[in-house]
Amino acid sequence: MVPTRYYVGVDVGGTSIKSGVVNDAGSHLSVVTLPTEAARGQEHGLAQIDEAVRQAVRAGNLGLDKIAAIGVATPGPLDIGAGIILEAPNLKPWRNVPVRRHVEEAFGLPTAFQNDANAAAYGEFWCGAGRGARSIVMFTLGTGIGCGIVLDGRILDGRHSHAGEVGHVRVELTNPRRCACGRLGCLEAYASAAAIMLRTMEALAARPGESILERERGAELSTRQVFEAAAAGDRIAQNIVSDTAFYLAVAAANMMHTIDPDMIIFGGGMIAAGLPFLDQIRTHVSVLAFPVPAADTAVCYAELGSNAGFIGAAACARKLVQERDARLTP
Amino acid sequence: MVPTRYYVGVDVGGTSIKSGVVNDAGSHLSVVTLPTEAARGQEHGLAQIDEAVRQAVRAGNLGLDKIAAIGVATPGPLDIGAGIILEAPNLKPWRNVPVRRHVEEAFGLPTAFQNDANAAAYGEFWCGAGRGARSIVMFTLGTGIGCGIVLDGRILDGRHSHAGEVGHVRVELTNPRRCACGRLGCLEAYASAAAIMLRTMEALAARPGESILERERGAELSTRQVFEAAAAGDRIAQNIVSDTAFYLAVAAANMMHTIDPDMIIFGGGMIAAGLPFLDQIRTHVSVLAFPVPAADTAVCYAELGSNAGFIGAAACARKLVQERDARLTP
Repeated sequence: MVPTRYYVGVDVGGTSIKSGVVNDAGSHLSVVTLPTEAARGQEHGLAQIDEAVRQAVRAGNLGLDKIAAIGVATPGPLDIGAGIILEAPNLKPWRNVPVRRHVEEAFGLPTAFQNDANAAAYGEFWCGAGRGARSIVMFTLGTGIGCGIVLDGRILDGRHSHAGEVGHVRVELTNPRRCACGRLGCLEAYASAAAIMLRTMEALAARPGESILERERGAELSTRQVFEAAAAGDRIAQNIVSDTAFYLAVAAANMMHTIDPDMIIFGGGMIAAGLPFLDQIRTHVSVLAFPVPAADTAVCYAELGSNAGFIGAAACARKLVQERDARLTP
Repeated sequence: MVPTRYYVGVDVGGTSIKSGVVNDAGSHLSVVTLPTEAARGQEHGLAQIDEAVRQAVRAGNLGLDKIAAIGVATPGPLDIGAGIILEAPNLKPWRNVPVRRHVEEAFGLPTAFQNDANAAAYGEFWCGAGRGARSIVMFTLGTGIGCGIVLDGRILDGRHSHAGEVGHVRVELTNPRRCACGRLGCLEAYASAAAIMLRTMEALAARPGESILERERGAELSTRQVFEAAAAGDRIAQNIVSDTAFYLAVAAANMMHTIDPDMIIFGGGMIAAGLPFLDQIRTHVSVLAFPVPAADTAVCYAELGSNAGFIGAAACARKLVQERDARLTP
């Protein structure tokens, strides 16, 4: 039996960096969280990434000599082939950051580089909800909407690292909402947590005195409270939740009619809403999609929670090593 | 030098079957057209397909013994893996037609089977507008909207043969038009030739006396007349054309944010509208898509016209033979 190899996965977010050591079975030996402190600049950020690698290895009770490769996932837009963050809105003021080369040189190890949503999808594909599937589309539902597409075991990242930016697929032609990206009618402008909050505020303003959410109105209101109010029978909250389920079902059906994967996975903070919300999405999908994919495509929640990103980054590192081995084997 | 092989490609449409012999360079030695006569039933239809193969071979001055493989493309929905037409709205009353097995047995030759829009995309990829690209998305703009996706030289057909059904991606959430497929808000319900005619009728009814198209109103009106009236300065026709370009640009940008291909190709009868229409689409894409794919993704017209389907079907046959050879070579 071949002894397991170990990989370090690093998931760089706008607020924090999460990292861990992962073995060939997809189990993690350590999880470490550090602040990103993006505002302190990209040199500091790269040093934090290095530190996240070192701390993950130490917390895993290993030495760096036991690590076969490193994977780093970051928010986009990226040039994945070049290993560079171009200019990520979530990591201001970083610009043209050569993450992959920096990490390769800092540790002398093969280093994989990926978009964070793609990495999360790859993590779920490898050892989460997507285990055993050949192809998946995963949506990460947070303040924004991330998406990753895995086809036949490979992340689809596209010619310009823009594949899977399905949060910015336009779903409204004639009377579109404005998205945080500046464009109009993006999925994210309808179904993200930020969009839920905005739609809730609009509904409360349009129908004063009708919702228990009015008490909470303002900066304190969270999507969690909207889902709780809906569960408690609040009509306005129920409409917001129901519309959100519909929008996400449109996104799922649209991917069934484009990618036609084995499975559509929803992850991110919003899935704390629980199975009743997933059932609403599934019910809409059964009407929206063509009969064959509607009946047979699994629509489910992610399983790895906020570990999906670093586990997926480690999976990218593992794939890098496997592909190198395949090239070296005659 | 390896001598060229010959393949027969067959493109089965609702009205006619087009077939031809194609060599390894993508050149066709013959083109033959037969009526489909779908209403006469699927047994007759299969016999017409056989006849289309025989006539193509004869017109190419070859014998069947010179043919390496056959490719057949048909309208969907299909089960591509099983080689079966399930129940195609354009081939009523056909149902569960085992096309691939029938053709294999009739001619004793390896037979490839594909969706017609996928085959057309593969034809353009092989030896049309997509020559040299690694990945393309092609829209075929006719009465409906077909779409085919080629990634790294391979047709994406998906788990249930529903990949690339982008004509039935929903692009309007809140106030959708009804599509011929019965669903709401599909791209096809906005940007197909049928949609152009419907939108023109609506505009003429809403603003009587304002358009030269009113003279032509009724069964005689064609999309060609709408494009010609727009070119002649008719405001209502110009609005219809401009909206259509916008809808197709949304479709293109959405694919840049999902597949991120090297190239987006528009084919089908509507491209007779010419380069001014393509320029309108490109102008909208430059605003709708993220800057990097917007600047670098080619958006162009197809080059093979109505031959794309049978040439693409032949390309599928050729790929089948190549893959068999690769398996047999140690």
